[in-house]
Formats: sequence, C-alpha cells, structure tokens
Amino acid sequence: MVKHLPLTLNHRWKTKESATVLLQTNKQFTQSDTTQKRNMTAVKEEPELKKQKITDVSERPVIVPPRDAELSYTPLKTGLCYDVRMRYHAKIFTSYFEYIDPHPEDPRRIYRIYKILAENGLIKDPTLSGIEDIGDLMLKIPVRDATEEEILEVHSKEHYDFIEKTSTMNREELLKATEKGDSVYFNNDSFASAKLPVGGSIEACKAVVEGRVKNSLAVVRPPGHHAEPQAAGGFCLFSNVAIAAKNILKNYPESVRRIMILDWDIHHGNGTQKAFYDDDRVLYISLHRFELGKYYPGTINGQYDQTGEGKGEGFNCNITWPVGGVGDAEYIWAFEQVVMPMAREFQPDLVIISSGFDAADGDSIGQCHVTPSCYGHMTHMLKSLAKGNLCVVLEGGYNLDAIARSALSVAKILIGEPPDELPDPLRDPKPEAIEIIDKVIRLQSKYWKCFKRRYGNAGCNFKDEINESLISKNFPLQQAIREQQLNTLSQDFKFATLPLLKPELPKDTVLCSPNVYQSKTVIICAHDTPEIWAKRDVIQGTIDPSSSIIVDSTLDFIKWANEKKYGVIDINIPQNLFEQENYSAIVTSQEVLTYIWDNYLKYFPNVEKVAFIGIGDAYSGIVHLLGHRDTRSVVKSVINFIAQKQLRALVPLVDESLSDWYFKNSLVFSDKSHTYWGDKENKKPRKKYGRLLRCETDGINNIVEERFEEATDFILDSFEEWSDSE
Amino acid sequence: MVKHLPLTLNHRWKTKESATVLLQTNKQFTQSDTTQKRNMTAVKEEPELKKQKITDVSERPVIVPPRDAELSYTPLKTGLCYDVRMRYHAKIFTSYFEYIDPHPEDPRRIYRIYKILAENGLIKDPTLSGIEDIGDLMLKIPVRDATEEEILEVHSKEHYDFIEKTSTMNREELLKATEKGDSVYFNNDSFASAKLPVGGSIEACKAVVEGRVKNSLAVVRPPGHHAEPQAAGGFCLFSNVAIAAKNILKNYPESVRRIMILDWDIHHGNGTQKAFYDDDRVLYISLHRFELGKYYPGTINGQYDQTGEGKGEGFNCNITWPVGGVGDAEYIWAFEQVVMPMAREFQPDLVIISSGFDAADGDSIGQCHVTPSCYGHMTHMLKSLAKGNLCVVLEGGYNLDAIARSALSVAKILIGEPPDELPDPLRDPKPEAIEIIDKVIRLQSKYWKCFKRRYGNAGCNFKDEINESLISKNFPLQQAIREQQLNTLSQDFKFATLPLLKPELPKDTVLCSPNVYQSKTVIICAHDTPEIWAKRDVIQGTIDPSSSIIVDSTLDFIKWANEKKYGVIDINIPQNLFEQENYSAIVTSQEVLTYIWDNYLKYFPNVEKVAFIGIGDAYSGIVHLLGHRDTRSVVKSVINFIAQKQLRALVPLVDESLSDWYFKNSLVFSDKSHTYWGDKENKKPRKKYGRLLRCETDGINNIVEERFEEATDFILDSFEEWSDSE
Repeated sequence: MVKHLPLTLNHRWKTKESATVLLQTNKQFTQSDTTQKRNMTAVKEEPELKKQKITDVSERPVIVPPRDAELSYTPLKTGLCYDVRMRYHAKIFTSYFEYIDPHPEDPRRIYRIYKILAENGLIKDPTLSGIEDIGDLMLKIPVRDATEEEILEVHSKEHYDFIEKTSTMNREELLKATEKGDSVYFNNDSFASAKLPVGGSIEACKAVVEGRVKNSLAVVRPPGHHAEPQAAGGFCLFSNVAIAAKNILKNYPESVRRIMILDWDIHHGNGTQKAFYDDDRVLYISLHRFELGKYYPGTINGQYDQTGEGKGEGFNCNITWPVGGVGDAEYIWAFEQVVMPMAREFQPDLVIISSGFDAADGDSIGQCHVTPSCYGHMTHMLKSLAKGNLCVVLEGGYNLDAIARSALSVAKILIGEPPDELPDPLRDPKPEAIEIIDKVIRLQSKYWKCFKRRYGNAGCNFKDEINESLISKNFPLQQAIREQQLNTLSQDFKFATLPLLKPELPKDTVLCSPNVYQSKTVIICAHDTPEIWAKRDVIQGTIDPSSSIIVDSTLDFIKWANEKKYGVIDINIPQNLFEQENYSAIVTSQEVLTYIWDNYLKYFPNVEKVAFIGIGDAYSGIVHLLGHRDTRSVVKSVINFIAQKQLRALVPLVDESLSDWYFKNSLVFSDKSHTYWGDKENKKPRKKYGRLLRCETDGINNIVEERFEEATDFILDSFEEWSDSE
Repeated sequence: MVKHLPLTLNHRWKTKESATVLLQTNKQFTQSDTTQKRNMTAVKEEPELKKQKITDVSERPVIVPPRDAELSYTPLKTGLCYDVRMRYHAKIFTSYFEYIDPHPEDPRRIYRIYKILAENGLIKDPTLSGIEDIGDLMLKIPVRDATEEEILEVHSKEHYDFIEKTSTMNREELLKATEKGDSVYFNNDSFASAKLPVGGSIEACKAVVEGRVKNSLAVVRPPGHHAEPQAAGGFCLFSNVAIAAKNILKNYPESVRRIMILDWDIHHGNGTQKAFYDDDRVLYISLHRFELGKYYPGTINGQYDQTGEGKGEGFNCNITWPVGGVGDAEYIWAFEQVVMPMAREFQPDLVIISSGFDAADGDSIGQCHVTPSCYGHMTHMLKSLAKGNLCVVLEGGYNLDAIARSALSVAKILIGEPPDELPDPLRDPKPEAIEIIDKVIRLQSKYWKCFKRRYGNAGCNFKDEINESLISKNFPLQQAIREQQLNTLSQDFKFATLPLLKPELPKDTVLCSPNVYQSKTVIICAHDTPEIWAKRDVIQGTIDPSSSIIVDSTLDFIKWANEKKYGVIDINIPQNLFEQENYSAIVTSQEVLTYIWDNYLKYFPNVEKVAFIGIGDAYSGIVHLLGHRDTRSVVKSVINFIAQKQLRALVPLVDESLSDWYFKNSLVFSDKSHTYWGDKENKKPRKKYGRLLRCETDGINNIVEERFEEATDFILDSFEEWSDSE
C-alpha cells in the first residue's frame, strides 16, 4: 500500500526540522523563566531525551518563522463513480402497463442516488449531470468501457459475443432474447451500458488500491452479481464485482493478495460465488433470503452449506434468511457473530461491498427492513478492515427513495462521518435468524478458528456431527436420564414399568405406582425428558457433568401424589430418537396417551377420578386424548406447563361441548415470554387452548415452581366432592 | 442534538429548488432526443414520480446558474484540548535519583502527545506552544479553570480545600502532604494545574454535545480517575471525567440523558466508579488488571462482581484481567463480547473514554501489549455509538513514546480515518481472559438482555447459580451417567461394585469384572466422568438430552480386556462433588488408587501382570501410586490419555530408578494443542512425565480413537512373555 507514502516522507523530513527548532526554543527559555527550572533541568538531565534529540518547550510561544507548509495531513477523498450513459440500458416497452409500472431495475436508480448525494452537499454538481469537479469531499472517478479481455477474465467468449450481438438486434430479436433470458432485458444500448459498470467497478477499486482515494462508491447499473460466467440473469449482464476483483488480483499481486467480497444484496450473488468458488484469494460472504431455495435465484448454490471447493473450500459463506422481514437486529447480529470475526481472521487487503439495497425497509421485492443507519453501521464495521481499503459497488435495490437514503448513509461513513443510531437497537433478532447463524458458525468452525473459540475446541460437540457410529459406540444422554428416573422412582416409591406395544420406544417409557390398579384416584404425568442445566467449558466447549444437574419438574408432583396415596402413571416422551429420523414427539405422545387410556385406565376397576399433568410438548398427547375420547366421566382436571412450547388446541371429535369443558377444567401455564402473548399485556386467550395463563417467569422449572400450589389446589378442588385421601 | 440542524435546514430548502430545475431540464430534453424517449416518457407517466415532484434528467448537462453555495457539507472538526500550564504541577525533587529517573506522571506526557499530532500534520503549531488556530482538521478548545461549584459536584469541600491549601504550603508541608498521600505529589502549582484538566474535560464534552465539533480529544494532566470524592490518589487530584459527566448531565438534561464512560486505563478507575455507583444515568465500564485486588488501587471495588447499587445496579461493569501481559486479542475480544453489545443496549447520548495509555505495549507499569492500532480499532468501535458523540480524555500512561503513538492512532480515528490493521490478528485471547469475560457476561446477563441471548433465556443454566436447594430437589448429571455405566457394565459384563471406605464417594465409584479376583492379568482403568457432547438450545440455552450423547472412552478398553478375558477394575473419579466445596479430584484419585492397591491388588492370589489405563485427571492417581509403592513386580505397562489436562510428574519416593522405569513402560498421550508443546514442533519431554506423545488431534475421545491400537499393542507387548489369553 503506497497510500500514505508521500505524506510519511515529508513528515520524516519535518520531524528533524522541528526537533532543532525546539532545541533552540528551549535554550532561550531556560535562561528566562524560573518557575519551570526544576522540570527543565530535569528534562535536560533526563537521559532518554538526549537519545531522542528533542526536549521540552516553554509555555510562552517563541516566535519562529512558520515552516509547516509541507506538513499538513490532508485526508484522502472518497472516490465516486457515476456516468449517465449507464442509463441507456432500459426495457423495451411492450404494453401500456409498463408505462404505469416500469421494470424495477429502472435507469433512474443511479440518478436518484447521485441526486441525493448532491442535495446533501457531499458532492457539488448543480446540473446533476456528472461533472468532473465534485467538491472537497469526493473525487470523481471516470467511468470507462471494460475491455473484452477484462470481461473474459470471468465470462465465456460465447456469453460476451451474445451480449455484444444485442447491440445489432432488431426489436423482435431483442424481445425474443429478453423472453428467453432469466429475468433480464436487452435493448440496443445494453452492450454499451453493460461495459461501463464493469469498467467503473475496476476503476473504483484501482483508485483505492493505488491510494488515490481513501475508499470509493461506484453508483453503477446494470448490476452484476447474478451474471454467471456463461449467462446473464437477474437483471445482470456482466459480473461487475467479480471482474473487478480478478482484475485487481492480477494487476496488484504484491499489494493485494486477498479480497473480501461482502454481498448484502437480499438475493444470493450466484455469479460472484461461482467466479471464486475454488479460489482461496477471495472470501465471498453473502447475506440473503433463501427460503429452501424458493427465493431468487432459487438454486441450492445459495444454501449455507456451500462453503467452496478445492483450494476455495472454507472461503465461501452464505448466511441464509429462512424468512423475509428481517432487519437491523438480524444484520447486526450476523455481522457481530459471523462477518467481522471471519473477516478479521481472513485479513483482506481490499474489501468490496456488493451493495444491493433491496434488503432496505420499503423495498417491495426484498420485503425486509434494514434501515439507512444500519447500512451505515455495517459500512463502519467493514471500514475497520484492510486499512480502510473499501469499495462499495451498487447491485440491486428497487425502491428509489430507499436506495437513495441508504446510499447516502453509506457515503457519509465513507467520507469519515459516524453512523446514526439504530432506530430500534433493543429488538432481539428473530429466533430463525439466531438459529441459522448458529448453524453457519458451527459449519464454518471447521475452517475458522475464531469460531472454534466461540464453540470450544472440542473435536465435535454438535448434534449435526453426532453420527450413527458415534451413537452405537456411545450412549444417548436421555436414556441415562430416564434410567436415573426409573432408579429413583423404583427405589423411593416402588414404581414399576408398564408395558407398551411400541417396540421403537424405550421399555421404561411408562412407569406406574404399585397401587395404581386399585386406586380410586389416579394422577397421570406426561412429560418430556427433563432439562439439563449445565456449564459449558468456555475453552473446550464440552459439558462438565460434575457441574450439571437434571432438573426434573415432575418429581414434585409425584411426591405430592404419593403422599396423597393417589395412583400415579409417569410417562416420559423423548423429544427425539437417534435411531429414527421420522420420529415425532407430538405423534408419539398422542399414541402413548391414547394407548394408556384404551388398554389400561378403561379397565382399572376402582378408578373414579383422574387428573392429567402435562409438561412440555408431551402435553399435546393429553389434549389429543381429551378431544378423541369422552373422558369426562372420570377426568376431573387437566394441568399443563408448556413454557415456550407451541399451543395445542383441543379439537372435539366427540362432542362440541368438549371445548367449554376443557376451558373450565384446565390450567395451561405458559412462559412470560411465550410468543402467543406478543407485546399485548392482556390478550384474551381462545377457549380451545384451555384456560391459558401467563406466568411471571420463563422456563419449565421456574413456572412449575411458581405455580405448583395453584396447580395442586386446582386438582384438589376438582376432586373436592371426594375426600382428599383414601 | 442540534449538531447537523443548520445543514439539514438549507438542504431542505435546496431540495425544492433542484426539483424544479430538473423539471425544466427534462422537458427540454424530451423534445430533443429520441434514443431515450421510451424511458423518458415512462418517467413522465410513472405515478410515483408526480407524487415526488421530481423527474429524470438528460445525460446532456443543461447549463443552469450554479446555486449550490449554501449546499456544501462541511464535516465538523475534531476538538483538541491542550494547555502548557497543566505542566506546572510537578514532583519536587528530593534526591539526585529523581533527576535520573523522574516520576512517571511526568509533565512532558501531554507535550509529547501534542508534539506527535503536530509532527503528523493533524494540527499546525510550529512552535508547539498551544496556539489558537491549529488548522483544518482539529479545533482548539480553550482550557479554563473549573469553578469550585463544578468540582464540588463530585468532591467534598474538605478535599477541595485541602488541594487549594497546597498552593500556599511551604516545601516541608508539601513534602509531608506528598508523603502522607496515596501515591500523589504536590507543589505550589498543583491546585492551579489540577483545575485545568477538569475545566478542559468539561469544555471538551460541551463542544461535542453542542455540536461545535464532531468529537474531541482532551490532552490533560494530572489524570483523574483515581481521585475519589474524599481523597486524591494514584497521581490524581480531581476526578476530571466524573466531574465533566456530572456537569453535562446537569446542563444538558434534554439532549444528554445517558453517558457511557469506557475506562481502558490499565488501573481500575475507583474514583469514577464511586461517583456513579448508584446512578443509572452513567454506565461505567472499566478494563483493568486486578490480580485478586493486588494490583493498584488494590481494593475489591475493582472486582468484576461490583455491578453498582440502588438505582445504579447493573450500570457498572469491571472486566478484570487476572494476569498482566494481555494485549490486542484480549481487548478486541472484550469489546466484541461485552463492551459493544452492552453499549448498544444502553444507548448512550455521549461516550467518554477515560483514556489511560498504560496498557500500551512498552509501558513498564502496565506491562501489557496493546498496540496503537488496537487503540484505533477500539476508538473506531466506540465511534459507532451515540451518533459519534465521543470525547477522549487522557488518564495514565507513562512510556512517553507509547502514549504519543497510541494517542496519534486514536486522534486519526477521531478525524475520520480508518484504523490500521492489527499486527497479530490471529492470536487467540489468553484462556484466563476468555474465562473472566465469560464470568462477566454471565453476571451481567442479569441486567442486559443482549447477554441472555448469548447464554439463552433459560432462567438459570450456570453452575454459579445452581444452589444446594436445587441440587437437593434435582439430580446431579454425573451420578446419572455413572449409574448408566454401572447398568451397562453389569448387564453386558456382569461387573459388580467394589466397596471403598470413603463415605463421601458414590458407592459405584469402583466396579470390577467377576473374574478379577482369580485373574493372572488385570487391567485397571481410572477415568474422569465421561464427556458429554451436547447441543445447546441457542434460544433457551438449555441442553437437549435427546440430541446429546455420553462419550465413554473407557468402554472400548473394557470390551477389549473382556475379550482377552483379563480381570478389569474400572474407577470413576468425579471432577467435582456438589456437596463438597473442598473436594479435589486429584487427591481423590490418588487416595482411591492407593487404597485399591493396598487393600485389593496386593491380596489377589494369582495376579502376575497389571496394566494401568488412565484417562483425564484421574491419571494423576496412577502416577502417584507408581511413585509411592514399588509396583514393578507386577505392573508391566501404563497408558495415559490426558488430552488438555495438566502433566503429572512421577515423584519417586521409593527408588530413584522409578523415573527411568516409568519412561520405559508408559505412553502418555496428550492433545495436539496441549500447552506443554507451545509452539515448538519437536520439544523433548522430561523423563519424569513418562513417554509423553503429542497426538494429531484434540479431545479425549479423539485421541483415544487415534491411539487405541498403539495403546493396546503396547500393553500386549509388555505382557508378551506371557500368552495373550488365559
């Protein structure tokens, strides 16, 4: 990087100069003043000082001829690429509707960005026509045609020739080509217009690399990141950014060894990814909507598990939003957790932003909510890389106001201003976003040690990597936990297992108290495998069993029921079974509960009253049973603790009045932060969910602790016409 | 914040103007050109457009009178506070040595910073005497005396009067006061000098808050953050930053409601903390060496668990380095993990950096290694807060070169330049640092939801919070795991428990094969409770047992020994016991192994050859036994898998030659990344550690898998004079 070289030079020269100046200054001074003598003498004695050939000065300025002309530190300007000729490429209108509702990749996109920069004084161009001298803050970078040779660095000759041919096609041919293409359009100016953004992007990067500007913004169209080596697509003809990156790597092998391309366009940059998929010199990171490949460009290439191949393996990172509607919180989270750590470890010499603004709030194609200040914050973070060698190249973005405001916010960061505050910094990222980012980190931790640190160095501690062989060799934790429950219940309460005709389930799925067959009163607990509270070793990432506990919320109820001498059936529904991919805890709980009812309870001679206690997902089995059998003759009450789990509605197959009955005779406790409540303080629950109550706390264990008495009292009341003990 | 108001105003005015200009431009154009007609008409039709009262323009500039004079966007300068008068406060010399080796809080500190700014052209002051006009980049902020009223906002009248009195003390009184103070000194100029940094800090903050500068740097001394309301200390007389913060909160109640003070001086800012300990308007975050309170100021107030009190609870955060020698990696990690998330959630209106540079590389008091570029990166990150309203106030820092270089790097960020690259971005933070930061996050997650997200929302999932009551109610995981091992071994291999006379240990600590009493050959496995590979719920932070497995590395060896029909003793040493605070796994393993030897093995009638297999910390018991008993008659080989665990040396109490014997007859497998190896590729291990070998991988389970054959072959060889099966 030669960037600051000239400056450093005359600054070195200056240092000596000023040093001598000071020496004199000080001599004169020490003869005059007295107050300072102590310090001054000290200073003259102080050895370090001689070494440095400089010394302290007086507070009284000594007049010396000002000779600091060469000394001024003039920060470099920000480069700007803009050329009205890029507006010639436009869609040929074939219907009146296209007048009303023009194609989103609209020639005015670049103009509106240029205009807002002028309106805010970042550039001075009263005519808004793209003049040469645009003021003190930004430097005009002339746009030029890219040469065929440059374009062929990424694209095939066939593709180049095809685009070239469009300039001589007649209207019909153009319309046919437009028809055939994958959401692209052509007119006779397309070829001419398409060579300009390529040339512009190259020049914008060059200016940064050569230190003529501190960073740059290329306001160009048509965009490039969907253009693959062989084909145009997604409004893109040539792959602007990819070609620029290849060009820089080729022409500045010494100063630029690694380039990072950060693509925050809401679509996956399939073209750019393909151009460097096997190249370890370019780290491509893209944040985009994916939605199981349904979102454009709609191929699995955009999936988060596409991490590059050959030498390029580990140098491709897709952060795939499973839903639309993401915004600042999700992008900041992604930058904090993935982009910045990875980038710092990669140590790029140049950072290029493939800057589509279609994730911006207000863009009807992206349907996301990234605010201008969030674009500012992301730019600010990326500016801290590569000594600030940053080039921003426009890609998509179709709401003319949104792209203008977003680009302005980015430009302000480039010229050195701080970012605005985020409008809503307190919002949590969506759970779906946290989950996908977690997946990305775990996958990429194969290649990046910064992520190992986040997840510990332990070779493997993630389910994804726990394969059959490991399981066969080792032991599922949930089984150990259930065995421990069996031990406790059989030792303390003489519980025994109750046989099930479901071979895939562990034998100890259902346990019962010895008195259950004779009991008048039976409590049936259906629960998930209890939670574990564990401490992860921050270095190794493993769980230390000696500092972890099994938090078994059912035990309290069983103790209580045992004191009351009730009969008890305890049902444990595993959330997953390693052996079975298609296993569903919900279905299983429904089958098991129905089975217990049909094959046991119905035949218990003395049973007169039953209470259900459901904990976690397992509770869906209870709701299902109540809807499918008429249990009202014996079932007196139903208690469910669902924490964060999904609500289950009672679907009355037997009798419509079941819903009312369920509402009257049930308590359903949910976490304070259960999604059902949203922000509304007092939302009125639907009857079909039972009497749904919002707890003060979160977490199964906490809400059970909070509502244990309320629950048991409710059960006792429902039994009250009977004596409480038998 | 009025900062950009004037600009925004005349920009609004401008927008209308230019809109009309464009309208004309375009009309003219659409009559002329043809190529563009399509687009242009479209543009005129397009409804959104009318709404906006603007439209597209031609690529041919239309000459209009330039009227953008008012429009220029001139970024604000960076404020600079410097006044030579602050150099009057100096130590009275009492011995010749103080000439040779002056007091570290040396008057030249501020001068050297001012000088390097001038030498690099950030300011223009050839005389280096603190002139008014210092050029285009920085704006001189005049320093003034703080008033008594201002100082009393933080300090007691007694303290103020005492400092005032120093101006009239005679030499003896000054020396006595210096003597009595907690590392402070006084001369007759101390009072005068000490009022200036206070006034300077106030003015530096004011200039930012009033939008006269974009941010500011106060190059002031004496420093302030150790000065408590009642007393001077640590070179500090008045609490500059605290007084400035109080002043701003008082005088700008509308625009400044919350202030964040980030103190990266290597010492804890006890004075600043005390001033706002019960105040929720000020978030004080300090990164400092603590070392169990031994490092200056040496009180527990600097401990990480001091989080504020009353209204201020949760608004104080101490990040305490347990060791010296920390540097960029640790500071960047702390900023990423703690400082920035907390700051973003706090949403300050002003950020003040208590900017000591004594953590800088080269500072002999701080003994840490923060580089200038790291100070740049930290400043850059903080600049993204509070709309960039940032004020940097000098505190400590005693290596004149280091503080100058560091301050220059900070100043460049302030004027808008990007930070330099970190010299060693790949270094991992020290484990001690990762651990303390983990502690801080867990503690602060009580108050900050950004941390809950990092650790899941589950009410509690950390050992710290797992108390007796929880344990009594619930079930230790390690016990469940051992019970599962017992089940497996007793079912598959008919193992039984071997009694121990250690009531505190679980009954199933030692298991043995049925044939062990008669066996000629016995394998003794001593291991820690097996690891768990688990997936943490990224939202809830709980462990899902159904997707977790117990990775039991011993099982392979037991199966192998069983096939060989060897006798087997399996010893499980828990790492911790909830019930016992003073429990030590190391001591226990030593006691148990010795006990087994003295009370069982010695009396086995047929035993002729024994092999030990140690896994994890439990292996120390084996090494201990070999050193304290002469077992060589029967023990043929020793295999240890220690992964990351600490090396244990054999201390031969019986016979010196034991070490050689141990080295010949043992294999000790360690992780690839075991600290012992450091960076050295082929470090020659010490004999006392046995034959220490470095594996290709990390993690108990992986190294056992890697070396299982080598281990068993080694045992068989050591048995070879005997038949391999009996």
